[in-house]
Amino acid sequence: ALNISLFPGGPANFSTYINTKKIFKPYPIMSTTQTNKIEIIKAATSKINEVDFDNLSFGAVFTDHLFECDYKNGEWQKPVIKPYAPFLLDPSAKVFHYGQAIFEGMKAYKDDNNDLWLFRPDENYKRFNTSAVRMAMPEVPEHIFMDGLNQLLQLDEAWVKKGKGNTMYIRPFMIATGEGVIANPSDEYKFMIILSPAKSYYAGEVKVLIAEHYSRAANGGIGAAKAAGNYAAQFYPTTLANKEGFQQVIWTDDATHTKLEEAGTMNVFFRINDTLLTAPTSERILDGITRKSLLDMAKKEGINVDVRPVLVSELVEASKNGSLKEIFGAGTAAVVNPIIGYSYKDVYYELPKVENSYASLLKEKLTNIQHKLAEDTFGWTVKV
Amino acid sequence: ALNISLFPGGPANFSTYINTKKIFKPYPIMSTTQTNKIEIIKAATSKINEVDFDNLSFGAVFTDHLFECDYKNGEWQKPVIKPYAPFLLDPSAKVFHYGQAIFEGMKAYKDDNNDLWLFRPDENYKRFNTSAVRMAMPEVPEHIFMDGLNQLLQLDEAWVKKGKGNTMYIRPFMIATGEGVIANPSDEYKFMIILSPAKSYYAGEVKVLIAEHYSRAANGGIGAAKAAGNYAAQFYPTTLANKEGFQQVIWTDDATHTKLEEAGTMNVFFRINDTLLTAPTSERILDGITRKSLLDMAKKEGINVDVRPVLVSELVEASKNGSLKEIFGAGTAAVVNPIIGYSYKDVYYELPKVENSYASLLKEKLTNIQHKLAEDTFGWTVKV
Repeated sequence: ALNISLFPGGPANFSTYINTKKIFKPYPIMSTTQTNKIEIIKAATSKINEVDFDNLSFGAVFTDHLFECDYKNGEWQKPVIKPYAPFLLDPSAKVFHYGQAIFEGMKAYKDDNNDLWLFRPDENYKRFNTSAVRMAMPEVPEHIFMDGLNQLLQLDEAWVKKGKGNTMYIRPFMIATGEGVIANPSDEYKFMIILSPAKSYYAGEVKVLIAEHYSRAANGGIGAAKAAGNYAAQFYPTTLANKEGFQQVIWTDDATHTKLEEAGTMNVFFRINDTLLTAPTSERILDGITRKSLLDMAKKEGINVDVRPVLVSELVEASKNGSLKEIFGAGTAAVVNPIIGYSYKDVYYELPKVENSYASLLKEKLTNIQHKLAEDTFGWTVKV
Repeated sequence: ALNISLFPGGPANFSTYINTKKIFKPYPIMSTTQTNKIEIIKAATSKINEVDFDNLSFGAVFTDHLFECDYKNGEWQKPVIKPYAPFLLDPSAKVFHYGQAIFEGMKAYKDDNNDLWLFRPDENYKRFNTSAVRMAMPEVPEHIFMDGLNQLLQLDEAWVKKGKGNTMYIRPFMIATGEGVIANPSDEYKFMIILSPAKSYYAGEVKVLIAEHYSRAANGGIGAAKAAGNYAAQFYPTTLANKEGFQQVIWTDDATHTKLEEAGTMNVFFRINDTLLTAPTSERILDGITRKSLLDMAKKEGINVDVRPVLVSELVEASKNGSLKEIFGAGTAAVVNPIIGYSYKDVYYELPKVENSYASLLKEKLTNIQHKLAEDTFGWTVKV
């Protein structure tokens, strides 16, 4: 029988737990040897000439097509690529009422030979299904996720522009489409992939507020899942911070507000003297792919890396004694997002300008790998 | 200037805080004196004869019409009542990606004179806007909420059946319809009301599992809001409990798992000897309308009521010494949901059968008031 007294005292990492124990596999998965012919319905005309690729707002423009696969009657249905368009949902669709919705953020890049590349897509795929399990949604079979992604990118490849300033932001997501206003898991879902061309993201000079009251995740909650509800929960506290002149909030643990956890929707790194610090992943902290890539790269660069809970008190102390050199966020959209100062208990601490910035070094190295401008010794890039 | 160092040390109650300080009013609200003519588009034919009113699944059948009002360009648009039907959304609609979605649950009743009654609708209205504020969504003006609700109920009044076994479940909800895969608040929303006829809800004999690891809310989080994401977060732990033979989970505080907070999607009451105990509302605990009504009724019945944090250890001790008499959930759907036993740390504690059950007494008294079968000395019922 299933042992329900889960995690006595830990472990903190839900995905490790899930992967180890395989306790929750309620949904049948199509065999990966099953024929996976994707129906392709091409758009009659392309919107591409209407788009100004030099002035793109992040996440606002979408390509001509999308990938879609529905789950019903206990199995995934025939996948389709079709023109990007609105779709119909019933007012009682469970995504509207109970928030069963997850997503991933990933990018594709075009090199000088017009080849398309993905960055660690296997990691996004695995995390997508970890999120699905936590939200009681069916896992998406690998061939549906990967074949859909590859064929969609090939069809809309003209939308991916060459050069380091250009990327294609990829948004796989799944929503509960089953009907009925009763709070239980849906029996129908829609998995989609949409594509949004993007310029390299520059967030400007970012000042952050360290959260003293609000939080983004609970112990035993869904902070490690890329669940839609995690994001809406941040909007109000972030709006309050914006009004005080801070672009983002650095989230602290909800129980004590003493541990530094994430910055906005990104993982967060701190450099004290020449050591790079970041919190370990947990149920409260997303297992970021940029985060883990930066850690691997930093180690390779000979940077001293320390993955452990980082305390607010340490940060303030390091500011006061001059040993705090850098803070930066890490995520798919911005890659690395340097922070120029932070406020805690109404005191603002400005960061020094450093010459040999770890943020700059790691961002440069990582984006060069992603854009195939440097050798990918890690084996992270995958050709479409 | 806005003081951002919010809640130093408390208070726990977000809605009290919001109501007191009025710190977040970013959206313009139409004047309540403004003309509020609702456009009404009637369905050509009614589905009512297709419905078996004696065999209704909860939340599965909807009436002929719905109420809809969109928010765009910074203001609420013209409201409309129209035939219940699916509607179009863009794949990048923010509700799918960032979970900006809130709802209310309320009921209407038909008395023997064919008059329609609501139960404390002002409380649902206020809580809806408290949820809206926490999720960075625009507040819905009172005339739109109330006039929409009343006119929709009048139009579909034939769907509300007389008798104590019959109610009309009402689901007002709001979703973010703005487009774009960037994590910030939407600038467009849709507010809807849909109606679902319901039989009195009987959940069967309910055994519950006390959460030792999972949780439903964080300090500084959104547990007090009726936000969609709160519900999806519960599905996976509840599914685990179901597999062990428990119908619901009693949630404990996420930091220590020592305090009893909610049961499934309901507030929870405990009777130890002849005292009725329930946790105070807080940022983690929903300010339930059934909860507060039961408290007022219990006091009037001369029952000793104690609203304070209730510890798991107290409950186990009371089970062991025989002083634990009852546990029950309280919410709109089930009104009162008696619990027959609970499990904690792999030990199952059965509740005794009591003769003068508080759960039965309070449920009987409350449903009599709701159905106009007893005098409403509290002034809770409002005629449609």
